Amino acid sequence: MVDRLVVIGGDAGGMAAAMQVRRRKPYLEIVALERGRWTSYAACGIPYVVAGEVEPLDQLVARSPDEFRDKHRIDVRTRHDVTGIDLAARTVEVRDLSRDRTFTIGFDTLHIATGARPLRPPLPGIDCDMVHGVQTLDDASDLLDHARTGEAARVAVVGGGYIGLEMAEAFCRRGAEVTVLEAGEQLMSTLDADMAGLVATAMRRRGIEVRTGSPVVGFEPGRVLLGDGALDTDLVILGLGVVPNSELADDAGIETGVKGAIVVNRRQQTSADGVYAAGDCAESFHLITQRSVHIALGTVANKQGRVAGINMGGGYATFPGVIGTAITRVCETEIARTGLTEVEAARDGFDVVTASIDGHTRAGYFPGTKPITIKVVAERGTRRLLGAQIVGEEGAAKRIDVLATALHAGFTVDEVIDLDLGYAPPFSGVWDAVHIAARRAADLLG
Amino acid sequence: MVDRLVVIGGDAGGMAAAMQVRRRKPYLEIVALERGRWTSYAACGIPYVVAGEVEPLDQLVARSPDEFRDKHRIDVRTRHDVTGIDLAARTVEVRDLSRDRTFTIGFDTLHIATGARPLRPPLPGIDCDMVHGVQTLDDASDLLDHARTGEAARVAVVGGGYIGLEMAEAFCRRGAEVTVLEAGEQLMSTLDADMAGLVATAMRRRGIEVRTGSPVVGFEPGRVLLGDGALDTDLVILGLGVVPNSELADDAGIETGVKGAIVVNRRQQTSADGVYAAGDCAESFHLITQRSVHIALGTVANKQGRVAGINMGGGYATFPGVIGTAITRVCETEIARTGLTEVEAARDGFDVVTASIDGHTRAGYFPGTKPITIKVVAERGTRRLLGAQIVGEEGAAKRIDVLATALHAGFTVDEVIDLDLGYAPPFSGVWDAVHIAARRAADLLG
Repeated sequence: MVDRLVVIGGDAGGMAAAMQVRRRKPYLEIVALERGRWTSYAACGIPYVVAGEVEPLDQLVARSPDEFRDKHRIDVRTRHDVTGIDLAARTVEVRDLSRDRTFTIGFDTLHIATGARPLRPPLPGIDCDMVHGVQTLDDASDLLDHARTGEAARVAVVGGGYIGLEMAEAFCRRGAEVTVLEAGEQLMSTLDADMAGLVATAMRRRGIEVRTGSPVVGFEPGRVLLGDGALDTDLVILGLGVVPNSELADDAGIETGVKGAIVVNRRQQTSADGVYAAGDCAESFHLITQRSVHIALGTVANKQGRVAGINMGGGYATFPGVIGTAITRVCETEIARTGLTEVEAARDGFDVVTASIDGHTRAGYFPGTKPITIKVVAERGTRRLLGAQIVGEEGAAKRIDVLATALHAGFTVDEVIDLDLGYAPPFSGVWDAVHIAARRAADLLG
Repeated sequence: MVDRLVVIGGDAGGMAAAMQVRRRKPYLEIVALERGRWTSYAACGIPYVVAGEVEPLDQLVARSPDEFRDKHRIDVRTRHDVTGIDLAARTVEVRDLSRDRTFTIGFDTLHIATGARPLRPPLPGIDCDMVHGVQTLDDASDLLDHARTGEAARVAVVGGGYIGLEMAEAFCRRGAEVTVLEAGEQLMSTLDADMAGLVATAMRRRGIEVRTGSPVVGFEPGRVLLGDGALDTDLVILGLGVVPNSELADDAGIETGVKGAIVVNRRQQTSADGVYAAGDCAESFHLITQRSVHIALGTVANKQGRVAGINMGGGYATFPGVIGTAITRVCETEIARTGLTEVEAARDGFDVVTASIDGHTRAGYFPGTKPITIKVVAERGTRRLLGAQIVGEEGAAKRIDVLATALHAGFTVDEVIDLDLGYAPPFSGVWDAVHIAARRAADLLG
């Protein structure tokens, strides 16, 4: 048996793990196989590169293959596509895309961090040139060319979630005429309708056309086909979510679960002995619903990767799980959520009270104070905080972290009221907006 | 016995209580007696008024006496100075300063919210006209006149704590030549020396002269006398902390404790039956040291006032305590602390590990990212977070709230690493600076 760790995937879930292993095992051979040309890049930064806010593109690369090789003795091979895992033989089959050859490499420990890919529903014409997903830096580079040349004067964004809205803003900043096509009745299905409505209003104020209840049925060159007509467009961005790249694991007989993501335990071990997984290809555990979920976020990938790496390196660490925190900024509007929405809580059988408040990000009289709307969801009876949503302007959204931390702690809304948060006029009112929302909920709970 | 609540003090600790009582007891007679001319004002906003950032002055008044009278039927009497409490007779003696007459008024329930006053050490010349404390809106109005006319070209600030530094900035913004005189070896004695050093550097960069180890021994018109010389000045601001206005309670036989502050239980009840207290005149309980403390902050006053009011109104509420969170902005530098510093932890007998990190407020590549330094203090053995300090620029300080919430929850640094905080490039790196500090501490704890 070879004393070698093979990592499949050179992004967060893979390389965060490899780095932890290297710290603990200075002499272990570590080989990381990455299909693309890049390692450890911040996919979340792509919209800001396309918008022209961040440049050049390679700013998004946290660590290059050379850096991994030279500084950390991690043998990163880009353009190497793993095509099969043989658990019995403890080998992976690899296609070297640059040299067009296939070989096998043995492993002692295997770490799967194959990520996820944008969902491409099997609609007629979805493979046209003008239809783009947003995942890799190659995608980013393509879109940046379109954005820069201004040849994409009309952009259709399919899907009104985080990436969809961020890309809508990016092209809007580039002067394009942008339409967001959302099949559902609201933008941001991860928010309750009342909060999502605030986002839609802000997008429209910015000049972005928002069409809800508008499912796409197909594509033709220069046109998006809708149920009730068509929209002329130069470019289509898919923002329909992602699917885990778990086929490789599944084909090898490794257990997969929610949405096909790889099942892992708290130490990021898969069902196969000596095989770990982390990141967008793997499941997480939701601490509020106490169920497995698939949440493809860089934060989760990094945390899971770190835990997998500590364990593979002979240490002990667990990843307890997620609470569904997400945050973004679209135009001047900041949006955040954590825990359960009202709709999600009801679906899970919780009896809840919700409270919404309109407040300020600074003392009401302080220059630069901005509006913030907070909605909190609390369980009746226990008075426990179950979730929160924020829509506001500068300084609003990161307040979600206080509510997220309170959720991790299992706090009641009364315990949120008691929190000794920082107050000075440039930072909040004497009662932070978070306190005010909790007070409203406590009042409604009686 | 009169069915009447008498509140002594018309600011946060008093009026937050009165409002809660009014909600619960619509027909109770509520009389609030305030020595000054203002009610419910944000004293924390005074430096920003003096700086000219906030105007006019009455922006700081959250609710006027008329509003309390007309909207909430709370009989607020300003310029009414309570001069004695007779617990046996259930009366207070009041001096009506406008009409220059004295009368007594009976109470069923009494609420003491007399606040605090700036410490004026008995130094020769401290009563000169040029020496100002910063507490009331009358003080603010005086200082604003000095700042506006520019007649205070040279300003000496005695004491390098929060209010001292905020006032130093205010006069610096007005173009004055400002010197901060601090008797101790560092500015901001509420921070550890390493973090306080960052603040001193920032102040000096802004052109404010900072002299530590420089005790003031007296004042003469136009001069501050120092141990080793004198400093010519047009105006002196005292920023030496505050003392609770608890003599009235003490004289009535009500128990006082730390620094003379009124002793209260968790429902804000004093040692006297039917007598409550809240705000800067009262003690708080420190949840980390588990000792009584005197912390004069608007947030605490509002929370205590609310709890006192709920209880006086026949409800049930407790104020569990504080963890010593404080935040400010001085020039472009944001400063925050929560829990225990390294020095405080050692004084309390904790064996600690500290970790300091330099990070960014946004993704490192994102426009507008600013530096943030976080120091965390964790207990050896239990790995429990004991405190944190932050010095940085825009977007840095309010992150203290996450660490404060983690402290309330009793989290270990490992639990802080696991927090599912919001990440998007405009808001943080994929590991928030808070995570990175916790990781460093976890590594050092082994």
